[in-house]
Amino acid sequence: MRTPKNEPPLELRDACIVAAQEIIAERGLENLSLREVARKLGVSHQAPYKHYPSRDHLLTEVMRRCFQRFAAHLDARPHHEDPAQDLEALGLQYLAYAREHPLEYRLMFSTTWPEPADRADLTADATHTFDVLRGVLRRVHGDRAEMREAIDLDALYIWSTMHGLAGVMDGPCIDHLDVKAKVLKQAVRHAMARMGIGLSGTV
Amino acid sequence: MRTPKNEPPLELRDACIVAAQEIIAERGLENLSLREVARKLGVSHQAPYKHYPSRDHLLTEVMRRCFQRFAAHLDARPHHEDPAQDLEALGLQYLAYAREHPLEYRLMFSTTWPEPADRADLTADATHTFDVLRGVLRRVHGDRAEMREAIDLDALYIWSTMHGLAGVMDGPCIDHLDVKAKVLKQAVRHAMARMGIGLSGTV
Repeated sequence: MRTPKNEPPLELRDACIVAAQEIIAERGLENLSLREVARKLGVSHQAPYKHYPSRDHLLTEVMRRCFQRFAAHLDARPHHEDPAQDLEALGLQYLAYAREHPLEYRLMFSTTWPEPADRADLTADATHTFDVLRGVLRRVHGDRAEMREAIDLDALYIWSTMHGLAGVMDGPCIDHLDVKAKVLKQAVRHAMARMGIGLSGTV
Repeated sequence: MRTPKNEPPLELRDACIVAAQEIIAERGLENLSLREVARKLGVSHQAPYKHYPSRDHLLTEVMRRCFQRFAAHLDARPHHEDPAQDLEALGLQYLAYAREHPLEYRLMFSTTWPEPADRADLTADATHTFDVLRGVLRRVHGDRAEMREAIDLDALYIWSTMHGLAGVMDGPCIDHLDVKAKVLKQAVRHAMARMGIGLSGTV
Protein backbone atom coordinates (compact mmCIF):
# COMPACT_ATOMS: atom_id res chain seq x y z
CA MET A 1 0.00 0.00 0.00
CA ARG A 2 1.51 3.33 -0.99
CA THR A 3 1.78 6.06 1.62
CA PRO A 4 3.71 9.34 1.69
CA LYS A 5 7.42 8.92 2.42
CA ASN A 6 8.63 9.07 6.03
CA GLU A 7 5.12 8.69 7.40
CA PRO A 8 3.81 5.57 9.07
CA PRO A 9 1.36 3.73 6.82
CA LEU A 10 -2.28 4.60 7.41
CA GLU A 11 -4.63 1.88 8.48
CA LEU A 12 -6.48 0.66 5.41
CA ARG A 13 -9.75 1.99 6.79
CA ASP A 14 -8.34 5.53 6.89
CA ALA A 15 -6.31 5.17 3.72
CA CYS A 16 -9.55 4.38 1.85
CA ILE A 17 -10.98 7.73 3.02
CA VAL A 18 -7.93 9.64 1.80
CA ALA A 19 -7.94 7.81 -1.54
CA ALA A 20 -11.68 8.41 -1.97
CA GLN A 21 -11.25 12.16 -1.47
CA GLU A 22 -8.42 12.20 -3.98
CA ILE A 23 -10.52 10.37 -6.56
CA ILE A 24 -13.41 12.79 -6.03
CA ALA A 25 -11.05 15.79 -6.32
CA GLU A 26 -9.33 14.52 -9.44
CA ARG A 27 -12.14 12.85 -11.35
CA GLY A 28 -15.44 13.75 -9.74
CA LEU A 29 -17.88 11.89 -7.53
CA GLU A 30 -19.22 9.85 -10.46
CA ASN A 31 -15.89 8.05 -10.65
CA LEU A 32 -15.73 7.02 -7.00
CA SER A 33 -15.90 3.24 -6.57
CA LEU A 34 -14.32 0.75 -4.16
CA ARG A 35 -12.51 -0.75 -7.14
CA GLU A 36 -10.91 2.63 -7.95
CA VAL A 37 -9.95 3.09 -4.30
CA ALA A 38 -8.27 -0.35 -4.26
CA ARG A 39 -6.42 0.48 -7.48
CA LYS A 40 -5.20 3.81 -6.09
CA LEU A 41 -3.94 2.16 -2.91
CA GLY A 42 -2.35 -0.77 -4.72
CA VAL A 43 -4.33 -3.32 -2.72
CA SER A 44 -6.55 -6.17 -3.87
CA HIS A 45 -10.02 -5.36 -5.19
CA GLN A 46 -11.54 -7.12 -2.22
CA ALA A 47 -9.54 -5.31 0.47
CA PRO A 48 -11.69 -2.14 0.87
CA TYR A 49 -14.80 -4.32 1.30
CA LYS A 50 -13.43 -5.47 4.67
CA HIS A 51 -14.20 -1.97 5.96
CA TYR A 52 -16.88 -0.66 3.62
CA PRO A 53 -19.69 -2.91 2.38
CA SER A 54 -20.36 -0.53 -0.53
CA ARG A 55 -19.24 2.66 -2.24
CA ASP A 56 -22.09 4.48 -0.47
CA HIS A 57 -20.80 3.35 2.93
CA LEU A 58 -17.39 4.74 2.05
CA LEU A 59 -18.87 8.02 0.82
CA THR A 60 -20.93 8.28 4.01
CA GLU A 61 -17.72 7.99 6.04
CA VAL A 62 -15.94 10.58 3.84
CA MET A 63 -18.81 13.04 4.41
CA ARG A 64 -18.92 12.30 8.16
CA ARG A 65 -15.27 13.19 8.53
CA CYS A 66 -15.81 16.43 6.61
CA PHE A 67 -18.54 17.44 9.07
CA GLN A 68 -16.38 16.43 12.05
CA ARG A 69 -13.41 18.51 10.85
CA PHE A 70 -15.67 21.42 9.95
CA ALA A 71 -17.32 21.40 13.41
CA ALA A 72 -13.89 21.25 15.07
CA HIS A 73 -12.75 24.18 12.90
CA LEU A 74 -15.83 26.21 13.93
CA ASP A 75 -15.26 25.36 17.59
CA ALA A 76 -11.67 26.59 17.28
CA ARG A 77 -12.76 30.18 16.51
CA PRO A 78 -11.83 33.00 18.90
CA HIS A 79 -14.72 32.93 21.38
CA HIS A 80 -16.41 36.09 22.66
CA GLU A 81 -18.67 36.83 25.61
CA ASP A 82 -20.85 39.03 23.41
CA PRO A 83 -22.99 36.71 21.24
CA ALA A 84 -23.03 39.22 18.34
CA GLN A 85 -19.24 39.23 18.29
CA ASP A 86 -19.21 35.46 18.62
CA LEU A 87 -21.57 35.15 15.65
CA GLU A 88 -19.23 37.31 13.59
CA ALA A 89 -16.23 35.18 14.57
CA LEU A 90 -18.22 32.08 13.67
CA GLY A 91 -19.13 33.55 10.28
CA LEU A 92 -15.54 34.43 9.44
CA GLN A 93 -14.40 30.98 10.55
CA TYR A 94 -17.09 29.44 8.31
CA LEU A 95 -15.98 31.47 5.28
CA ALA A 96 -12.32 30.62 5.84
CA TYR A 97 -13.12 26.91 5.82
CA ALA A 98 -15.21 27.17 2.66
CA ARG A 99 -12.38 29.01 0.91
CA GLU A 100 -9.56 26.75 2.11
CA HIS A 101 -11.38 23.43 1.70
CA PRO A 102 -13.63 23.78 -1.35
CA LEU A 103 -13.89 20.04 -1.99
CA GLU A 104 -14.85 19.22 1.60
CA TYR A 105 -17.30 22.11 1.56
CA ARG A 106 -18.95 20.79 -1.59
CA LEU A 107 -19.11 17.29 -0.14
CA MET A 108 -20.97 18.59 2.91
CA PHE A 109 -23.38 20.99 1.28
CA SER A 110 -23.76 20.22 -2.42
CA THR A 111 -23.58 16.42 -2.54
CA THR A 112 -26.63 14.19 -2.66
CA TRP A 113 -26.55 12.03 0.47
CA PRO A 114 -25.61 8.40 -0.15
CA GLU A 115 -28.38 5.80 -0.36
CA PRO A 116 -29.07 3.41 1.31
CA ALA A 117 -26.02 3.37 3.54
CA ASP A 118 -26.54 3.61 7.28
CA ARG A 119 -26.83 7.36 7.71
CA ALA A 120 -27.58 7.76 11.41
CA ASP A 121 -23.96 8.69 12.15
CA LEU A 122 -23.78 11.11 9.23
CA THR A 123 -27.01 12.75 10.36
CA ALA A 124 -25.61 13.07 13.88
CA ASP A 125 -22.38 14.68 12.66
CA ALA A 126 -24.19 17.11 10.32
CA THR A 127 -26.63 18.04 13.09
CA HIS A 128 -23.77 18.53 15.53
CA THR A 129 -22.24 21.06 13.11
CA PHE A 130 -25.54 22.94 12.82
CA ASP A 131 -25.77 22.86 16.63
CA VAL A 132 -22.65 25.05 16.86
CA LEU A 133 -24.70 27.87 15.31
CA ARG A 134 -27.78 27.01 17.37
CA GLY A 135 -25.60 27.21 20.48
CA VAL A 136 -24.60 30.82 19.83
CA LEU A 137 -28.20 31.75 19.02
CA ARG A 138 -29.41 30.23 22.29
CA ARG A 139 -27.29 32.88 23.97
CA VAL A 140 -29.07 35.55 21.87
CA HIS A 141 -32.65 34.32 22.25
CA GLY A 142 -32.45 32.41 25.52
CA ASP A 143 -32.55 28.64 25.89
CA ARG A 144 -36.28 28.24 26.50
CA ALA A 145 -38.37 25.69 24.63
CA GLU A 146 -40.60 28.38 23.11
CA MET A 147 -37.57 30.02 21.48
CA ARG A 148 -36.51 26.92 19.54
CA GLU A 149 -38.32 27.89 16.36
CA ALA A 150 -36.94 31.44 16.45
CA ILE A 151 -33.46 30.00 16.96
CA ASP A 152 -33.80 27.65 14.00
CA LEU A 153 -35.23 30.38 11.76
CA ASP A 154 -32.28 32.65 12.55
CA ALA A 155 -29.84 29.75 12.20
CA LEU A 156 -31.14 29.07 8.68
CA TYR A 157 -30.93 32.78 7.88
CA ILE A 158 -27.33 33.08 9.07
CA TRP A 159 -26.25 29.81 7.46
CA SER A 160 -27.83 30.88 4.16
CA THR A 161 -26.06 34.23 4.22
CA MET A 162 -22.69 32.58 4.91
CA HIS A 163 -23.26 29.85 2.34
CA GLY A 164 -24.17 32.48 -0.22
CA LEU A 165 -21.18 34.69 0.58
CA ALA A 166 -18.89 31.68 0.17
CA GLY A 167 -20.51 30.76 -3.15
CA VAL A 168 -20.62 34.28 -4.58
CA MET A 169 -17.32 35.73 -3.38
CA ASP A 170 -15.28 32.61 -4.14
CA GLY A 171 -17.40 31.67 -7.17
CA PRO A 172 -16.46 31.80 -10.84
CA CYS A 173 -18.80 34.64 -11.79
CA ILE A 174 -17.79 37.51 -9.51
CA ASP A 175 -14.60 38.44 -11.38
CA HIS A 176 -16.49 39.14 -14.59
CA LEU A 177 -19.08 41.61 -13.34
CA ASP A 178 -17.25 44.92 -13.46
CA VAL A 179 -17.22 45.36 -9.69
CA LYS A 180 -14.36 47.46 -8.32
CA ALA A 181 -11.59 45.70 -6.39
CA LYS A 182 -12.24 48.05 -3.48
CA VAL A 183 -15.86 46.90 -3.33
CA LEU A 184 -14.90 43.23 -3.55
CA LYS A 185 -12.52 43.70 -0.67
CA GLN A 186 -15.23 45.22 1.54
CA ALA A 187 -18.06 42.91 0.48
CA VAL A 188 -17.85 40.26 3.21
CA ARG A 189 -17.57 42.77 6.06
CA HIS A 190 -20.40 44.80 4.54
CA ALA A 191 -22.67 41.77 4.24
CA MET A 192 -21.90 40.72 7.80
CA ALA A 193 -22.64 44.22 9.07
CA ARG A 194 -25.98 44.18 7.21
CA MET A 195 -26.70 40.73 8.64
CA GLY A 196 -25.96 42.01 12.12
CA ILE A 197 -28.47 44.85 11.64
CA GLY A 198 -30.98 42.33 10.27
CA LEU A 199 -30.60 40.15 13.35
CA SER A 200 -30.97 43.07 15.74
CA GLY A 201 -34.46 43.96 14.52
CA THR A 202 -37.78 42.33 15.33
CA VAL A 203 -39.35 40.23 12.59
CA MET B 1 -30.81 15.21 -37.26
CA ARG B 2 -33.26 14.03 -34.59
CA THR B 3 -35.74 16.54 -33.21
CA PRO B 4 -38.88 16.09 -31.10
CA LYS B 5 -41.92 14.87 -33.04
CA ASN B 6 -44.28 17.42 -34.55
CA GLU B 7 -41.85 20.25 -34.03
CA PRO B 8 -39.95 21.95 -36.82
CA PRO B 9 -36.28 20.94 -36.76
CA LEU B 10 -34.04 23.33 -34.86
CA GLU B 11 -31.27 25.02 -36.73
CA LEU B 12 -28.07 23.09 -36.07
CA ARG B 13 -26.64 26.04 -34.16
CA ASP B 14 -29.50 25.94 -31.66
CA ALA B 15 -29.76 22.15 -31.64
CA CYS B 16 -26.13 22.00 -30.48
CA ILE B 17 -27.03 24.14 -27.45
CA VAL B 18 -29.93 21.88 -26.51
CA ALA B 19 -27.81 18.75 -26.98
CA ALA B 20 -24.97 20.26 -24.94
CA GLN B 21 -27.30 20.99 -22.00
CA GLU B 22 -28.65 17.46 -22.17
CA ILE B 23 -25.14 16.00 -22.10
CA ILE B 24 -24.21 18.18 -19.11
CA ALA B 25 -27.41 17.19 -17.29
CA GLU B 26 -27.00 13.49 -17.97
CA ARG B 27 -23.28 12.97 -17.73
CA GLY B 28 -21.67 16.09 -16.28
CA LEU B 29 -19.67 18.94 -17.74
CA GLU B 30 -16.52 16.78 -18.03
CA ASN B 31 -18.23 14.75 -20.74
CA LEU B 32 -19.22 17.70 -22.93
CA SER B 33 -17.43 17.64 -26.30
CA LEU B 34 -18.36 18.63 -29.83
CA ARG B 35 -17.98 14.97 -30.78
CA GLU B 36 -20.57 13.95 -28.16
CA VAL B 37 -22.89 16.71 -29.36
CA ALA B 38 -22.59 15.46 -32.96
CA ARG B 39 -23.28 11.88 -31.84
CA LYS B 40 -26.37 12.95 -29.87
CA LEU B 41 -27.75 14.88 -32.85
CA GLY B 42 -26.94 12.14 -35.36
CA VAL B 43 -24.86 14.49 -37.54
CA SER B 44 -21.29 14.18 -38.79
CA HIS B 45 -18.47 14.82 -36.35
CA GLN B 46 -17.50 17.89 -38.34
CA ALA B 47 -20.96 19.50 -38.42
CA PRO B 48 -20.93 21.32 -35.02
CA TYR B 49 -17.56 22.90 -35.92
CA LYS B 50 -19.35 24.98 -38.55
CA HIS B 51 -20.89 26.95 -35.69
CA TYR B 52 -18.52 26.40 -32.76
CA PRO B 53 -14.74 26.39 -33.26
CA SER B 54 -14.30 24.51 -29.95
CA ARG B 55 -16.09 22.93 -27.03
CA ASP B 56 -15.38 26.07 -25.01
CA HIS B 57 -17.10 28.26 -27.61
CA LEU B 58 -20.16 26.02 -27.38
CA LEU B 59 -20.11 26.12 -23.56
CA THR B 60 -19.77 29.91 -23.68
CA GLU B 61 -22.92 30.07 -25.78
CA VAL B 62 -24.78 27.66 -23.46
CA MET B 63 -23.91 29.86 -20.47
CA ARG B 64 -24.83 33.06 -22.33
CA ARG B 65 -28.31 31.76 -23.03
CA CYS B 66 -28.73 30.79 -19.37
CA PHE B 67 -27.95 34.36 -18.33
CA GLN B 68 -30.27 35.74 -21.01
CA ARG B 69 -33.19 33.56 -19.91
CA PHE B 70 -32.47 34.29 -16.24
CA ALA B 71 -32.42 38.06 -16.83
CA ALA B 72 -35.69 37.80 -18.79
CA HIS B 73 -37.21 35.80 -15.94
CA LEU B 74 -36.12 38.44 -13.39
CA ASP B 75 -37.50 41.22 -15.58
CA ALA B 76 -40.85 39.39 -15.75
CA ARG B 77 -41.42 39.73 -11.97
CA PRO B 78 -44.39 41.72 -10.69
CA HIS B 79 -42.98 45.28 -10.54
CA HIS B 80 -43.62 47.61 -7.62
CA GLU B 81 -43.27 51.34 -7.15
CA ASP B 82 -41.79 50.80 -3.68
CA PRO B 83 -38.17 49.64 -4.15
CA ALA B 84 -38.29 47.48 -0.98
CA GLN B 85 -41.29 45.61 -2.35
CA ASP B 86 -39.60 45.39 -5.74
CA LEU B 87 -36.49 43.88 -4.11
CA GLU B 88 -38.64 41.27 -2.41
CA ALA B 89 -40.35 40.39 -5.70
CA LEU B 90 -36.94 40.15 -7.34
CA GLY B 91 -35.69 37.86 -4.58
CA LEU B 92 -38.67 35.52 -4.85
CA GLN B 93 -38.31 35.46 -8.63
CA TYR B 94 -34.61 34.62 -8.23
CA LEU B 95 -35.35 31.73 -5.86
CA ALA B 96 -38.06 30.33 -8.12
CA TYR B 97 -35.62 30.21 -11.03
CA ALA B 98 -32.93 28.52 -8.96
CA ARG B 99 -35.42 25.89 -7.82
CA GLU B 100 -37.01 25.27 -11.22
CA HIS B 101 -33.81 25.34 -13.29
CA PRO B 102 -31.06 23.82 -11.13
CA LEU B 103 -28.82 22.89 -14.05
CA GLU B 104 -28.99 26.35 -15.62
CA TYR B 105 -28.43 27.89 -12.22
CA ARG B 106 -25.30 25.79 -11.66
CA LEU B 107 -24.03 26.65 -15.13
CA MET B 108 -24.30 30.36 -14.35
CA PHE B 109 -22.95 30.42 -10.82
CA SER B 110 -20.91 27.30 -10.12
CA THR B 111 -19.17 26.63 -13.42
CA THR B 112 -15.63 27.69 -14.20
CA TRP B 113 -15.80 30.05 -17.14
CA PRO B 114 -14.57 28.59 -20.44
CA GLU B 115 -11.06 29.41 -21.61
CA PRO B 116 -9.95 30.84 -23.95
CA ALA B 117 -13.19 31.31 -25.89
CA ASP B 118 -14.25 34.84 -26.75
CA ARG B 119 -16.02 35.83 -23.57
CA ALA B 120 -16.98 39.45 -24.19
CA ASP B 121 -20.58 38.47 -24.96
CA LEU B 122 -20.80 36.18 -21.94
CA THR B 123 -19.43 38.93 -19.72
CA ALA B 124 -22.00 41.35 -21.14
CA ASP B 125 -24.89 38.95 -20.53
CA ALA B 126 -23.76 38.13 -16.98
CA THR B 127 -23.29 41.82 -16.20
CA HIS B 128 -26.70 42.62 -17.65
CA THR B 129 -28.23 40.13 -15.21
CA PHE B 130 -26.43 41.73 -12.27
CA ASP B 131 -27.60 45.12 -13.55
CA VAL B 132 -31.22 44.11 -12.88
CA LEU B 133 -30.38 44.14 -9.16
CA ARG B 134 -28.26 47.28 -9.46
CA GLY B 135 -31.24 48.97 -11.15
CA VAL B 136 -33.53 48.42 -8.17
CA LEU B 137 -30.82 49.56 -5.76
CA ARG B 138 -30.32 52.77 -7.75
CA ARG B 139 -33.91 53.56 -6.81
CA VAL B 140 -33.02 52.97 -3.14
CA HIS B 141 -29.71 54.84 -3.01
CA GLY B 142 -30.14 57.34 -5.84
CA ASP B 143 -28.39 57.19 -9.20
CA ARG B 144 -25.46 59.47 -8.39
CA ALA B 145 -21.87 58.51 -9.15
CA GLU B 146 -20.85 58.62 -5.51
CA MET B 147 -23.45 55.98 -4.65
CA ARG B 148 -22.07 53.37 -7.06
CA GLU B 149 -19.94 51.61 -4.47
CA ALA B 150 -22.77 51.50 -1.94
CA ILE B 151 -25.03 50.07 -4.63
CA ASP B 152 -22.55 47.36 -5.55
CA LEU B 153 -21.92 46.47 -1.90
CA ASP B 154 -25.63 46.03 -1.29
CA ALA B 155 -26.06 44.18 -4.58
CA LEU B 156 -23.40 41.66 -3.51
CA TYR B 157 -25.05 41.37 -0.10
CA ILE B 158 -28.49 40.70 -1.57
CA TRP B 159 -27.17 38.34 -4.23
CA SER B 160 -25.22 36.38 -1.62
CA THR B 161 -28.28 36.04 0.61
CA MET B 162 -30.41 34.80 -2.30
CA HIS B 163 -27.69 32.48 -3.57
CA GLY B 164 -27.30 31.06 -0.09
CA LEU B 165 -31.04 30.59 0.44
CA ALA B 166 -31.27 28.74 -2.86
CA GLY B 167 -28.31 26.53 -1.94
CA VAL B 168 -29.39 25.80 1.63
CA MET B 169 -33.16 25.44 1.27
CA ASP B 170 -32.98 23.38 -1.94
CA GLY B 171 -29.75 21.66 -0.93
CA PRO B 172 -29.20 18.04 0.07
CA CYS B 173 -28.35 18.73 3.74
CA ILE B 174 -31.39 20.59 5.06
CA ASP B 175 -33.70 17.58 5.31
CA HIS B 176 -31.35 15.78 7.72
CA LEU B 177 -30.94 18.45 10.39
CA ASP B 178 -33.94 17.91 12.61
CA VAL B 179 -35.55 21.24 11.70
CA LYS B 180 -39.35 21.32 12.00
CA ALA B 181 -41.40 21.41 8.79
CA LYS B 182 -43.09 24.57 10.09
CA VAL B 183 -39.70 26.29 10.38
CA LEU B 184 -38.61 25.15 6.92
CA LYS B 185 -41.82 26.55 5.47
CA GLN B 186 -41.20 29.98 7.03
CA ALA B 187 -37.44 30.10 6.45
CA VAL B 188 -37.35 32.01 3.14
CA ARG B 189 -39.83 34.67 4.28
CA HIS B 190 -37.99 35.01 7.58
CA ALA B 191 -34.61 35.43 5.89
CA MET B 192 -36.04 38.01 3.49
CA ALA B 193 -37.59 39.93 6.37
CA ARG B 194 -34.23 39.92 8.20
CA MET B 195 -32.52 41.03 4.98
CA GLY B 196 -35.03 43.87 4.64
CA ILE B 197 -34.22 45.04 8.17
CA GLY B 198 -30.51 44.72 7.40
CA LEU B 199 -30.90 46.92 4.32
CA SER B 200 -32.89 49.56 6.16
CA GLY B 201 -30.09 50.33 8.62
CA THR B 202 -26.96 52.41 8.14
CA VAL B 203 -23.69 50.50 7.83
